[in-house]
Formats: sequence, C-alpha cells, structure tokens
Amino acid sequence: MAASAGPEIERLIALLSKLPGLGPRSGRRAALALLKKRDTLLAPLATAMAEAQAKVRTCGTCGSLDVTDPCAVCADGSRDGRLLCVVEEVGSVWAMERGGSFKGRYHVLGGLLSALDGIGPEALRIGELVGRVADGSVAEVILALPATVDGQTTAHYIADRLAKTNVPVTMLARGVPVGGDLDWLDDGTIAQALRARRPA
Amino acid sequence: MAASAGPEIERLIALLSKLPGLGPRSGRRAALALLKKRDTLLAPLATAMAEAQAKVRTCGTCGSLDVTDPCAVCADGSRDGRLLCVVEEVGSVWAMERGGSFKGRYHVLGGLLSALDGIGPEALRIGELVGRVADGSVAEVILALPATVDGQTTAHYIADRLAKTNVPVTMLARGVPVGGDLDWLDDGTIAQALRARRPA
Repeated sequence: MAASAGPEIERLIALLSKLPGLGPRSGRRAALALLKKRDTLLAPLATAMAEAQAKVRTCGTCGSLDVTDPCAVCADGSRDGRLLCVVEEVGSVWAMERGGSFKGRYHVLGGLLSALDGIGPEALRIGELVGRVADGSVAEVILALPATVDGQTTAHYIADRLAKTNVPVTMLARGVPVGGDLDWLDDGTIAQALRARRPA
Repeated sequence: MAASAGPEIERLIALLSKLPGLGPRSGRRAALALLKKRDTLLAPLATAMAEAQAKVRTCGTCGSLDVTDPCAVCADGSRDGRLLCVVEEVGSVWAMERGGSFKGRYHVLGGLLSALDGIGPEALRIGELVGRVADGSVAEVILALPATVDGQTTAHYIADRLAKTNVPVTMLARGVPVGGDLDWLDDGTIAQALRARRPA
C-alpha cells in the first residue's frame, strides 16, 4: 500500500511496518507522527537507533544483550553465580529483572526446541549451558521457560542433558497468577494449582 | 517500566513507546525485535530515519511533507491547479493520493478548529488558503475534512471565509461507504444518505 509520498518517506513507512505490533497502516501513522515531530521524536530516535546499532552486543557468557560484553548482569560480582536461570529470550531476562527478586545469573537459549519449526538443540545455546554447568560453579539451574508445549519440551530436554552433572534442575511453579480470578483461569492451570497445593 | 537493560536500550525503548500504536510493553517488544535484527532491520531503519530527518521538509505552498519544496504534487504541471482540495493532515493527502481519483492540488490545514483544545483559525493554515484562493487561479475548493464536529465546524468557517471570493466551495459526499452494510451503519449516516439520494 503506497503512501504516495517520496521514496524516502515510503522507505521509512516500509521499515516501520516491519516492527512487531505495527502493520502497513499503523506504520504509516507512526511515520507521520515522526515526520511531524522531526526535532523532538524523529531525530532522537534516529540517534538512539544508530547508537544501539553501534554499541549493543550479545553477551558471550549468557547470550543477553547489553553495551558491554560480558553484560552488566554477568559482570556484577554481587550476584550469586551459583544460581543459573535459563530463559528463552532476552525479553525474559528483562521481565525477570523487572520482578527484581532473582539475584543469580542468566542463560539465554535464543529460542525453544520446536519440531514444527525444525529448531533442534544445535540451533540453541544448550551446548554452552551444559559447559557452564559442567565447570562446577553452578549449584542450581532454574528453568524459567514458557508453559507451552515447546517450552516444556525444551525444559525436559535440558533436564535430561544436565542429569549427569548432578546439579539440581528446578522450574518455575505453576499456579494461580497474582490477582487471578478462578473464573477466568483455564482448567489446566486450576488442575496444576490444585496438585501443587500447600498449607495455607 | 524499566527494561533493566543498559541506558542505550532503555532510551530506545522509551522513544519507541512514544510512537502512535505502541506503548511501554509493545515498545519493548519492538526494541527487542530491532536489537535481534541489528543488521537487517535496526541499521536500515536508523539510516532511513536519519535520511528523512535530513531531507523531508514541509511544502511552503500546500503544507504537505516531501523531500522537495514545493512538493511533488505542487510541482507537477500535469495536475489541475484550478481544483484545490483542503485536508486536515498530511495523512489525508496520502489517503487521497492512494485513491488516485483526484488530479488537483492540496492545501493541508495542519489541524482542525477546536474550541475544546483551544485551536483557533490563526493556528491553522487558513490565512494561506484564503491567499491561494484570492489570487484567482482556483476554480473550486473541495473540503475533504472529517465528518466530525470539529471537521464540520472547520468546514463552515472556511466556507464563510471564502464566501467573498465567489469561488464555489464543495465538500465530500456523505453516504453509505463502499461495502457498507446498512445493518452496521449509524443512524446519522443512513439519514444523510437518504437525504442525498439520487436516481438509481
């Protein structure tokens, strides 16, 4: 869908439309907002993007994104290196850090095993994970993977691979989310919460 | 809502969140997508933005956005300068051009009169419009303004201001949109379509 503007504007719209959450129509709206606020929004965003492009790199240890390698979490000596939290993506690291209750380190897999999408163990950072755990400095591996089929398949595979290291592998609890009304919960969650019930 | 990443990433997220259609959460998702595709998406988008920032300007004649001033539409000698279409925003110019059935020129007001938001005639490009019409080269002014209270207020005001030039002022027809099912139309549209009925 052309915007009938110059090629520079068309190109901006086409690229903005590729962002998750934006399509051709909202991409055009975003481009228009940027072009109307050329000094207050377009220029700072262009600078921020160029800066991110130049500086942000993947941490060689955990696979997260930061402007330093190793990343701030891996380099932070006050964090407990014996706790290793395995997550699917960098977004999960950000979510865990917002929670603020985890003080260990992370390992980003970069995806999940998926037979449908043809993603095998070699496509993920599972070998690196086994290496980190095998060197003896890790006391517990916490799997914070999505409660989906692919997430659980990946969790089982990792638990298998780590079995011979004798390091305990745990996973996040399943249950009623905070603020969750039983009326709106699916049967699977209620069943899991019931099985994992605890003294009140 | 912090992403718990470095300041460069936080800044990128904060700016992306200001785009229309994106909020703090989807801004973070967009930033993550950009950072994961640093070479295929982030770099081209940063370049496109810098280029747009450097090149795009407001057309001194019609108020539209283009990399040239006067813009491509104003400079196009094959277009009929006697037809002047008045629109609220640059987005409306793009929409009209996508339609492809209008071959005249445009005048972008840059907004609508609004008592609530305190936007008066001097904040819009209405003086420029009167000037363009008064020089005698325009044979018809077509008001393509939104069918809202502010849009109609603005249309009436412009028609008043242009009355003494004796140039005919018309507005887009109101009626059933193409593909519109009567069941889903509001009463106002049906009433207007009925009043403006025509031989089948």
